[in-house]
Amino acid sequence: MSSRPIGVFDSGVGGLTVLKELIRRLPKERFVYFGDMARAPYGPKSKETVTRFSRQIVNFLMKQEVKAIVVACNTASAMALEALEKEFELPIIGVVKPGVKAAAETTNSGHIGLIGTEATIESGIYEDYLKEYRPDVKLTGRSCPLFVSLVEEGCIEDPVTTEIARRYMSGFKDTGMDTLIMGCTHFPMIEDTIQRAVGEGVRLVNPAFETARSTQEMLSEKDLLNKKDIPVNEEAYRFYVSDAPERFRRIASLFLPLSIGEAKQIAIEEY
Amino acid sequence: MSSRPIGVFDSGVGGLTVLKELIRRLPKERFVYFGDMARAPYGPKSKETVTRFSRQIVNFLMKQEVKAIVVACNTASAMALEALEKEFELPIIGVVKPGVKAAAETTNSGHIGLIGTEATIESGIYEDYLKEYRPDVKLTGRSCPLFVSLVEEGCIEDPVTTEIARRYMSGFKDTGMDTLIMGCTHFPMIEDTIQRAVGEGVRLVNPAFETARSTQEMLSEKDLLNKKDIPVNEEAYRFYVSDAPERFRRIASLFLPLSIGEAKQIAIEEY
Repeated sequence: MSSRPIGVFDSGVGGLTVLKELIRRLPKERFVYFGDMARAPYGPKSKETVTRFSRQIVNFLMKQEVKAIVVACNTASAMALEALEKEFELPIIGVVKPGVKAAAETTNSGHIGLIGTEATIESGIYEDYLKEYRPDVKLTGRSCPLFVSLVEEGCIEDPVTTEIARRYMSGFKDTGMDTLIMGCTHFPMIEDTIQRAVGEGVRLVNPAFETARSTQEMLSEKDLLNKKDIPVNEEAYRFYVSDAPERFRRIASLFLPLSIGEAKQIAIEEY
Repeated sequence: MSSRPIGVFDSGVGGLTVLKELIRRLPKERFVYFGDMARAPYGPKSKETVTRFSRQIVNFLMKQEVKAIVVACNTASAMALEALEKEFELPIIGVVKPGVKAAAETTNSGHIGLIGTEATIESGIYEDYLKEYRPDVKLTGRSCPLFVSLVEEGCIEDPVTTEIARRYMSGFKDTGMDTLIMGCTHFPMIEDTIQRAVGEGVRLVNPAFETARSTQEMLSEKDLLNKKDIPVNEEAYRFYVSDAPERFRRIASLFLPLSIGEAKQIAIEEY
């Protein structure tokens, strides 16, 4: 069981920032990544639709005989995780809880900020989780939909991204917010720009990093960590998409420090 | 037969710019609009996927007993129209051909520009159609993916949109290009910004306007124009979406000069 791969999924390429942290922290693990390129982005979609899509992906990953699943998509973690945990028996970890926990432990002022897609912010799920850890901490959310397109266009260090970041962050000025959760997988790609816009006094929390740590802890508790060394090759890291495998490979090279082999296209709606 | 509605579809809200021109030109016609919000955008998706999605939508619209269909999406027109025309008997009009025809008739220099999504530009379909009308005319394409997000964020008259437009249009400077096709339904919303960026000497072609004219001509030829006045109410203009009906209604109010009633959500993958 412990030698089985870990399943990771996202609406597209963004979850690769989570895979990157997982590979860094768990170098002895195999991974199967699924990117739902045909139906991306999940951000503007409803809870019901995102849950249906996520259920199909979990079914597909279970066919790949994974030992655990990481939902590397903030929208899917916010909207579908609870339903998935009820329906499936294998361990499933989302990116929301680890991010909230780290932010709650970081803040001194008791005021946390959250940036993400419209759906993530409106779901209210970050507030719900935060109440479990620190009911005294305040959370202020701001949706930043343009960040996703800017990152995918390659506008990483760019005056346009700087200007958009300035606008998005302006509402946080002088509010006492001292910890900001990057609640969308694309955002760590423009972490420096976000840091400059929000000011050096604010600590940025990267849920990808925290999720990798939580995954390691969970696997260790359940005695599911792989013990043997693995060869780092195309068999160890497998990639599947619902569409546009070539586009996936191209953008993946921006996100991942390793070159990836073939990304196989599958018909996800059949699962 | 002639009193039946006209079906119009798009990957989301963008096709409403086409519906607007259709209503303006054909005030006696009923319309059924479908926006594929659950699977939008089509721009980055493959030909095979876009064709499969479009086929499902045509099946759905035929169940609504439409007399003709307007594919109000550049990507779907570019990638799926040929397949749809072969598979279905009812008249189907796309936005590509009318736009190409108008541009070919407008240019004096013999050099046309085209802006659109990545998929539309890469499909090469505009070049293919252009060869039929004016094999002597040159076409230069440029994908402008950020324009879509900027419009949907409401950055219509905005320095950021101006800067992005300046970058996208810079390659057209001093090329002799005198006619530019706005090959994406969102772009007419920022027509003024595009015009300033590309210079006053360039004529912009709005395929939505040309498509409405072609639709009128086609219905007239086939004796399918509705003869009687219709009451302008929610029965005359019906809206369906595959997801997020409330978000659809909200953005629709930016695009359409009339307020729309309920947008009904349907499960499009079942068609």
